[in-house]
Amino acid sequence: MDIVIPLFQRFEPLDAIGPYEILAYVPGAKVRFVAPEPGVITDVLGALPVEVRTRYSEVESCDVLLVPGGGGTRELIADPEFLAWVRRIHAGTRFTTSVCTGSQVLGAAGLLDGLTATTHWEAVADLEGHGAVYTPERVVRQGKIITSAGVSSGIDMALQLAALLTDETTAQAIQLYTEYDPQPPFDSGSVAKAPAAALKRARTLDEERRRG
Amino acid sequence: MDIVIPLFQRFEPLDAIGPYEILAYVPGAKVRFVAPEPGVITDVLGALPVEVRTRYSEVESCDVLLVPGGGGTRELIADPEFLAWVRRIHAGTRFTTSVCTGSQVLGAAGLLDGLTATTHWEAVADLEGHGAVYTPERVVRQGKIITSAGVSSGIDMALQLAALLTDETTAQAIQLYTEYDPQPPFDSGSVAKAPAAALKRARTLDEERRRG
Repeated sequence: MDIVIPLFQRFEPLDAIGPYEILAYVPGAKVRFVAPEPGVITDVLGALPVEVRTRYSEVESCDVLLVPGGGGTRELIADPEFLAWVRRIHAGTRFTTSVCTGSQVLGAAGLLDGLTATTHWEAVADLEGHGAVYTPERVVRQGKIITSAGVSSGIDMALQLAALLTDETTAQAIQLYTEYDPQPPFDSGSVAKAPAAALKRARTLDEERRRG
Repeated sequence: MDIVIPLFQRFEPLDAIGPYEILAYVPGAKVRFVAPEPGVITDVLGALPVEVRTRYSEVESCDVLLVPGGGGTRELIADPEFLAWVRRIHAGTRFTTSVCTGSQVLGAAGLLDGLTATTHWEAVADLEGHGAVYTPERVVRQGKIITSAGVSSGIDMALQLAALLTDETTAQAIQLYTEYDPQPPFDSGSVAKAPAAALKRARTLDEERRRG
């Protein structure tokens, strides 16, 4: 079972690594990262340069495509060759999936037209600009396309995917092995639940980080 | 604010990247990865070669030390130079922390003697072998030492840490930005909750993965 995760400059690290951690424990699965050009791909937070050895165009088919999000999705969306590859790969996948703003890449490739989908809460308008119908759910499945919300939601999606690819007991075993028994100290993980002050602060957090 | 995460061959990816994702959004914080030798460090799942540019011994002090776990902690525990560095760094940190079997490294460095601590549920005896008193909690704080349970627990710990380093609103904003509103499809994330079949399956999962 071949699971392919494209990385690109300024990918959001947990978008990719959360699902990787879960899916690598699916018995018989091989997860691999691919990139527009082989070489060092650095995440959006700047401290994680990953050596990616495979060009995406070397991949002709796979069982699962998982597109993470991050600042660099802007360039992917503007790259017709990459989008054509996504369409080509999608034709043969068992599941085509995204985390966070990765859904915009699926949208730009024309895969979400008229479908219900999700994305990071700050990227709703962009997703809808690609013809999808946004719903504020954490994981949205439409046939073989599964989109998930911001950053950490990829972990929940990957567990669902693990169950679809194997069986419930195996997915539960992976959840146990990775000890995914979440106990966040606050209940502030969605726009509906976050205190107003946290929402206000969240809107400037990324800009503040980029200013350093 | 300087946050240092040692990587090493066969680190568990989410142990390191979960907290990295959270802590990189702490305003004014700089997260950096260090390694026994600069160069390519590959995770235990085998698909994530990370280019690490800083040798740990170049770091003389930092605000937060965060030691992830993974198969490679065995070598760290057997490395007296690395353990001496952990002790030296710990003397000047605001917080010394671990995820998963990273707590064994803190233990081997002599930092957990007689303290309550946690680790991955399969590594309890090893942790206690280093003089710590295991408690099956997800995040355990003893003064400035914070240990967390298996793999994904580092995300919960990092959010607590973010609040300690800044304030609750900022930590809540980071939770919202990373959309950490966990909705696992199963309730199988701890030994106490997992169905017996999942526990049995979990015990062979890693070996099965290594056999390929």
